[in-house]
Amino acid sequence: MNYPSTIKNLIECFKKLPGIGEKTAERLALSTLQMDDDILKLFSTTLEDIKIKISRCKKCNNLCEGELCEICKNKNRDNKTLCIVEDPKNVIVLEKVGTYNGLYHVLNGLISPLDGINPEDINITSLIDRIENEEIKEIILALKPSIEGETTSLYISKLLENKNIKVTKIAHGVPIGVDMEYIDTLTLEMALEDRVSIS
Amino acid sequence: MNYPSTIKNLIECFKKLPGIGEKTAERLALSTLQMDDDILKLFSTTLEDIKIKISRCKKCNNLCEGELCEICKNKNRDNKTLCIVEDPKNVIVLEKVGTYNGLYHVLNGLISPLDGINPEDINITSLIDRIENEEIKEIILALKPSIEGETTSLYISKLLENKNIKVTKIAHGVPIGVDMEYIDTLTLEMALEDRVSIS
Repeated sequence: MNYPSTIKNLIECFKKLPGIGEKTAERLALSTLQMDDDILKLFSTTLEDIKIKISRCKKCNNLCEGELCEICKNKNRDNKTLCIVEDPKNVIVLEKVGTYNGLYHVLNGLISPLDGINPEDINITSLIDRIENEEIKEIILALKPSIEGETTSLYISKLLENKNIKVTKIAHGVPIGVDMEYIDTLTLEMALEDRVSIS
Repeated sequence: MNYPSTIKNLIECFKKLPGIGEKTAERLALSTLQMDDDILKLFSTTLEDIKIKISRCKKCNNLCEGELCEICKNKNRDNKTLCIVEDPKNVIVLEKVGTYNGLYHVLNGLISPLDGINPEDINITSLIDRIENEEIKEIILALKPSIEGETTSLYISKLLENKNIKVTKIAHGVPIGVDMEYIDTLTLEMALEDRVSIS
């Protein structure tokens, strides 16, 4: 004897989610029996709609409902500055900071020849289009400081040579509120190299 | 700027599940965008149906689809033995062992006066009904060895006095494959007290 088929199916669905194993899936599936009817209804409809309603912004490739994302639609943003990020999560994180007022370009991946991800597999063609058709003055590379991130940053900065566009990279260094002794040597090396003048 | 509303709603739904915080909910919600369409459809329909399709077995209170659960419907099971468990998960666990062939009775909780859970709040009335109407010869108490479990076991065994029913309790002791030094004293005390003769 096992669970009734509806519960079994639900356990299987939960197991398809990242990081959810057999035991957790079982616990989550059973917990839905105690959920409020309206939450369950919302849960069910959003799951049904998610892939239909959510698309990628035609301009920057961010997640959106409709043609363009909220940021690209916003006329008050500085459309001469472009921040290049790996995925839509990074946009949310940077928006939470609240100080950046330019536009974004979501690559949806990083160049990684070892994993078979080449420049044509990420949204670089659309970036070139934007560079040619929009009046961009500065491109900020906000990619993670990994081999893939550095490779992608290098590739994009090569593309931008002789285009009269300022290319910058977000600073890597010691995070605020962290004891120096817990920082890895590579980060410290970067922090030393990229030191800024204070007087 | 935040996520589009469909994603925001889905994050909120995931957050209602036990043990799922903001970050995990965000990760799970975004991962659904990569799910296969048929899995997403199944996920959505099972969530919608779960509370409608799944009910409690009229006899033993186990989870089921329809009137009676698979175990109560099975004519090959020994209907003279009843195993008392706390919740439907315990039924699944015991069924996986595969050696028990009797029926179950799911209490759906344990007596816990401190939490305001009294005998009338769990399925004890229906147990009394079964004892009076079915020809039960043995009742096995398979409740967890906590204060609540012991209180409930004691309460049920008192109810069964002078009913000519054999009442047993599953053995508590040292689990197989665990080093003795890691076992708590209470378990060892029980293991000593409930020692079994081997010659």
